[in-house]
Amino acid sequence: MIEQVEDEELRSCLMFIVRADALKKVLRKTKIVGGGRDENTAEHSWHLILMALSLARYANGPIDVNRVVKMLALHDLGEIGVGDVPLYDPARSQVQAEEEEFVKELFSTLPRELEKEFLDLWMEFAAGQTLEARFARAMDRFQPFLNNLENNGSSWAELKITKEMALDKNKSIQEGSDTLWQLYRILAGKADAQGMFWQT
Amino acid sequence: MIEQVEDEELRSCLMFIVRADALKKVLRKTKIVGGGRDENTAEHSWHLILMALSLARYANGPIDVNRVVKMLALHDLGEIGVGDVPLYDPARSQVQAEEEEFVKELFSTLPRELEKEFLDLWMEFAAGQTLEARFARAMDRFQPFLNNLENNGSSWAELKITKEMALDKNKSIQEGSDTLWQLYRILAGKADAQGMFWQT
Repeated sequence: MIEQVEDEELRSCLMFIVRADALKKVLRKTKIVGGGRDENTAEHSWHLILMALSLARYANGPIDVNRVVKMLALHDLGEIGVGDVPLYDPARSQVQAEEEEFVKELFSTLPRELEKEFLDLWMEFAAGQTLEARFARAMDRFQPFLNNLENNGSSWAELKITKEMALDKNKSIQEGSDTLWQLYRILAGKADAQGMFWQT
Repeated sequence: MIEQVEDEELRSCLMFIVRADALKKVLRKTKIVGGGRDENTAEHSWHLILMALSLARYANGPIDVNRVVKMLALHDLGEIGVGDVPLYDPARSQVQAEEEEFVKELFSTLPRELEKEFLDLWMEFAAGQTLEARFARAMDRFQPFLNNLENNGSSWAELKITKEMALDKNKSIQEGSDTLWQLYRILAGKADAQGMFWQT
């Protein structure tokens, strides 16, 4: 019925919103706290936004948290086209281009200035060069860590992730927040001592 | 393990983030697009944020969309304590006080300025007096409408909602956006003609 809305700009916004709903069906390898089921990417995105609002004080330098929040709301929309590819999957570096292609198409029907704003934010996150993008990316890395800690390391066991692999794959947290990276290393050490990581 | 973090402020932020994860387990009466399962409140919150970023141009007057987004990220956290109470449930007016009590406790362990910021935003949304709160509340009403339209009226049939009930319960959309309220009425009329609403 939305496709019958007469105003073209309004119709394009509504169709975008309805298409984006599909992010709720993309499942990740991380489980929600308490286990039970895989987290989906839409609720993950909300959780990252809440984290950014709560942890902005720990960013490496002053950030515009509003831009961080917008990036986090948009950054995973490419997964609607491509699916979630875990951090440790060798295919991960190839999917970035596919995600970019998908979001360009997804945003292309929006009113011009909105298309530009959303694509610029998406690209800024993907490039990871600004303080805001780096902090947003640190949220994206730190949230699964928290959930895995709370779930006694469930995904690490499932994916056979050692502490060394986790430290190597997540060291870019330091670019967004020295404080959170320092904490990551301390907690990873404790988690490893408790057998939460895969032991070789 | 988070409870062992030495820095008190950082620990309190992390514990808040972990507690908030429970919003992913609160189920709503609306289904995700395509049906299949109930929507949960965390992914619903993300969807509202995306809507606000996309539809801000249709607000009744200039708004600070960043404050709208923050309100939407926080506004449903009370449901962790109280659960989701559908718009049409007679108990709905009573639960507001319980939700307020819950979020006051939830925010109370955060660093003082963050506690104040979050509670102020939560209260602003609940009061619905500012342009931003009214627009945020309009998003909260319009999103289930979109999903129900896409799902051929599934929740309306299930809850025995007539078009008249929907118009009455959602008329406050007009306070946030005349454009969206006008559209709501048109689309509700079409949906009713197609038998999507409960017919008395």
